[in-house]
Amino acid sequence: MGKDEVVEQGEYSAKDYHDPPPAPLIDAEEICKWSFYRALIAEFIATLLFLYVTVLTVIGYKSLTDPNKPGTSECDGVGILGIAWAFGGMIFILVYCTAGISGGHINPAVTFGLFLARKVSFIRAFMYMVAQCLGAICGVGLVKAFQKSYYVRYGGGANELSPGYNKGTGLGAEIIGTFVLVYTVFSATDPKRNARDSHVPVLAPLPIGFAVFMVHLATIPITGTGINPARSLGAAVIYNKEKAWDDQWIFWVGPFVGAAIAAFYHQYILRAAAIKALGSFRSNA
Amino acid sequence: MGKDEVVEQGEYSAKDYHDPPPAPLIDAEEICKWSFYRALIAEFIATLLFLYVTVLTVIGYKSLTDPNKPGTSECDGVGILGIAWAFGGMIFILVYCTAGISGGHINPAVTFGLFLARKVSFIRAFMYMVAQCLGAICGVGLVKAFQKSYYVRYGGGANELSPGYNKGTGLGAEIIGTFVLVYTVFSATDPKRNARDSHVPVLAPLPIGFAVFMVHLATIPITGTGINPARSLGAAVIYNKEKAWDDQWIFWVGPFVGAAIAAFYHQYILRAAAIKALGSFRSNA
Amino acid sequence: MGKDEVVEQGEYSAKDYHDPPPAPLIDAEEICKWSFYRALIAEFIATLLFLYVTVLTVIGYKSLTDPNKPGTSECDGVGILGIAWAFGGMIFILVYCTAGISGGHINPAVTFGLFLARKVSFIRAFMYMVAQCLGAICGVGLVKAFQKSYYVRYGGGANELSPGYNKGTGLGAEIIGTFVLVYTVFSATDPKRNARDSHVPVLAPLPIGFAVFMVHLATIPITGTGINPARSLGAAVIYNKEKAWDDQWIFWVGPFVGAAIAAFYHQYILRAAAIKALGSFRSNA
Amino acid sequence: MGKDEVVEQGEYSAKDYHDPPPAPLIDAEEICKWSFYRALIAEFIATLLFLYVTVLTVIGYKSLTDPNKPGTSECDGVGILGIAWAFGGMIFILVYCTAGISGGHINPAVTFGLFLARKVSFIRAFMYMVAQCLGAICGVGLVKAFQKSYYVRYGGGANELSPGYNKGTGLGAEIIGTFVLVYTVFSATDPKRNARDSHVPVLAPLPIGFAVFMVHLATIPITGTGINPARSLGAAVIYNKEKAWDDQWIFWVGPFVGAAIAAFYHQYILRAAAIKALGSFRSNA
Repeated sequence: MGKDEVVEQGEYSAKDYHDPPPAPLIDAEEICKWSFYRALIAEFIATLLFLYVTVLTVIGYKSLTDPNKPGTSECDGVGILGIAWAFGGMIFILVYCTAGISGGHINPAVTFGLFLARKVSFIRAFMYMVAQCLGAICGVGLVKAFQKSYYVRYGGGANELSPGYNKGTGLGAEIIGTFVLVYTVFSATDPKRNARDSHVPVLAPLPIGFAVFMVHLATIPITGTGINPARSLGAAVIYNKEKAWDDQWIFWVGPFVGAAIAAFYHQYILRAAAIKALGSFRSNA
Repeated sequence: MGKDEVVEQGEYSAKDYHDPPPAPLIDAEEICKWSFYRALIAEFIATLLFLYVTVLTVIGYKSLTDPNKPGTSECDGVGILGIAWAFGGMIFILVYCTAGISGGHINPAVTFGLFLARKVSFIRAFMYMVAQCLGAICGVGLVKAFQKSYYVRYGGGANELSPGYNKGTGLGAEIIGTFVLVYTVFSATDPKRNARDSHVPVLAPLPIGFAVFMVHLATIPITGTGINPARSLGAAVIYNKEKAWDDQWIFWVGPFVGAAIAAFYHQYILRAAAIKALGSFRSNA
Repeated sequence: MGKDEVVEQGEYSAKDYHDPPPAPLIDAEEICKWSFYRALIAEFIATLLFLYVTVLTVIGYKSLTDPNKPGTSECDGVGILGIAWAFGGMIFILVYCTAGISGGHINPAVTFGLFLARKVSFIRAFMYMVAQCLGAICGVGLVKAFQKSYYVRYGGGANELSPGYNKGTGLGAEIIGTFVLVYTVFSATDPKRNARDSHVPVLAPLPIGFAVFMVHLATIPITGTGINPARSLGAAVIYNKEKAWDDQWIFWVGPFVGAAIAAFYHQYILRAAAIKALGSFRSNA
Repeated sequence: MGKDEVVEQGEYSAKDYHDPPPAPLIDAEEICKWSFYRALIAEFIATLLFLYVTVLTVIGYKSLTDPNKPGTSECDGVGILGIAWAFGGMIFILVYCTAGISGGHINPAVTFGLFLARKVSFIRAFMYMVAQCLGAICGVGLVKAFQKSYYVRYGGGANELSPGYNKGTGLGAEIIGTFVLVYTVFSATDPKRNARDSHVPVLAPLPIGFAVFMVHLATIPITGTGINPARSLGAAVIYNKEKAWDDQWIFWVGPFVGAAIAAFYHQYILRAAAIKALGSFRSNA
């Protein structure tokens, strides 16, 4: 693929550009480096902060609009729009902060998609997911430790199917939602784009954060919006009610399927396409 | 196209800049290339995702604020502000993701404006519009398949004139709204700006998304805001009620007229002006 | 000033940098160029679109939340937050679109501040203000033409002192609000910053739009937020009620005083400072 | 400083990068320079504007939603989402405007974190904090001078623990909130990132503003959100009620502890790590 791309790229800039070789499944060398463990710490802390801020926002919103609580009004609180901003905005700043350290995944579905595209090794993908899930559990745990009564009363930010929607709808919503997110991640981190625009590492977090924001606007009424298995697991572990566990599989299967479709779409339709198209490009040159 | 791009690109790096030659009306070569079909796929998928997320947001909002449904409150839901964000934000991320593949139109009115300015060939413009309309129909269809009862009850996101506004007002609102959008698209993709600011492909999607956001804030109360014939057609086909079809022409005539005025304003007032002004500039040099 | 700055700038990059010479009061040459008239057209159209979209948003919001109208609810409409977004977001996209043509003022107070700093000639400043005021009048007129009954019933977006606030408070709010805006404009267009960051023409519109957004959040409850004499004049001319005319002077004196203070602060404290500081910088070198 | 900057800058262009040497505790030279006093003025004015706009927004919101005031409705006002935008958006534009003059701290906790990381000298850190606190007091004072009756009635924007939360929760919320902010500041201003992305001075303010926005969404229901001791002190001094003074220590201890943890995390985990990891990196090369 490397050679073909150089030809196409040559039209854009003189700087030669190659796709990096696919990451090996198991890279013995990388687990000997401190930078690997530093990346795990960064993923852990970022997912912890992600869950802490977002679950706190969800609970604060429900607390302020509780009709059974004196002194509250229907219109206090930040609303679903504010909750969607909290999820999208946190992803924006956390991807911005951790992109240079760990790649800024903060989401097992993103890690899974990048693993399928052979951007990260199996061992790195697996350890990232572990760090993300632990971080998510700690983040929600922190919220519960701080304000147990509110946490329990207002549902702990757990992902559950809303009444009136069946499991198929919830699964579909998670698949397409994660597809939107992971498609944006692939578009933003495409090495072809990097070659053209040297400042992508700074700008990519904004559309990625907006993708999360958009998906939350659309699917909060259906599932509360997962599209991040670590987020759903963390909330379920700490909340630990039956309903949250019963629906939990949706928030793992959906995001992983969506990420896989996005990886396929990007690698086999949008990118590999470039190779097939080479014949036609060359006939012009 | 390959060869043209080399020439065009070479001018950027040399800091001397020429307009690319106008696209031919029918370019037999381009339809032999895989990149053409890849662009159609990208437009189809992007318009599908655009309609899926936005119509889901509209229906979720109406469902949560339905006064006849128990347990809802007037102030739940994301509000019109949230709906406007959904439309503007999706255009931001989808233009960001598809700009490098298809140019990121996602809107027949944008395609029409760029065709009038001779930036795309007739055959490309026509096929883009077909892909966009099919994508929009599939996107709304997906929403209906997922949650038929809500979809029917809450109006399916179809564009209709609101009571109290006449057809002239609706048409005017669509014309000016599309003018704002297509004027922003022309400003963001102006090759003169590209010559100056090499990173425009990454930054242009933000003001384009904001233009969509702004127009929705202003005209949702009047027409529900079309400014995108594919979006209006897709919603009408799946919703399939008389009122949506009766007003449909407004959402084709308005955007196409607005896009034509924007193309005229940009090409004949702002750009061609540059040529006429050359005399005066040269007398300074 | 030119030479001193070069020394300081030399530390940032090798590209030599000079302040442009102050604009002459009257530049006979510029009025012979088409680019001058093109800039006037661009300011006219931009201010027209600015007022059209924002006044439509204000009226749509009031119409949807009118308690006397059947079928509306307190919580429909975009809220004051949505109105603030409409003003800030439109300035973002219009400054983005017109920056390369006219400098993207769209506001007599901004033009006045840049004139005081000798960035534009007197004749250009005066003609820009005329174009902006005419554009604003046409923009509001367009809204009224489209939907006269709503326009009259909901106050036409005119700036007036809210009950409970005295004229001094209103004037102060306009002065400080315009200071925030024009200070941001000076910071964003500082040639020192331009020398360092070549892509400022693309990025500057975002903080300028946010400055407008912020000031609206803070002062809509006090005066409806002017900080733009053309916007206040346009709304008053078309609305044409006594109260709007009685308070009109506040929306000219306030913004002009605020812009003058911002110009003074930037030129004599922040920039001239650089010159005085030269002794200390040189002693290091 | 002049000489150091030349050296530092030279390294960027050479694509080889070193950390700047730690700032001395007391730098006798810097207090002889006008640029030092100019930075103090910029911090003073920026903090004044920050408090003026944000407290005005808080009071305007409470005034419009006061159920005891005739003609208001529950849903007028900008909501907590609007207040969070006011704080985050102001930090975005003020950091953008002052970054080139003073570094754009506008917050004693940020100054403290950067002092701990030896990015600023002790004397600069101390004087910045004084300027920030004076600016905050003046900013809130301005709001009170303008509209005394509203100011007193609606609580003056002072930070207090909300009923139902204990002091430990409030302290924890301030610590983690400030950690998010200062971690973002360190990530955005990391010289390693600067070396890679030359335009960071323009882009860094956006994620920093978003960090402030996010933390406000999450913790306004708990403490009103301090994460800025100058903001809490300014509001307490002008409001001057017992409750605001009783809780004041939380808004100094919390942010300083949070900033210290962020400085430690960045310097000893993320950055120092880079040094330790050098062995493993080199073994690859």
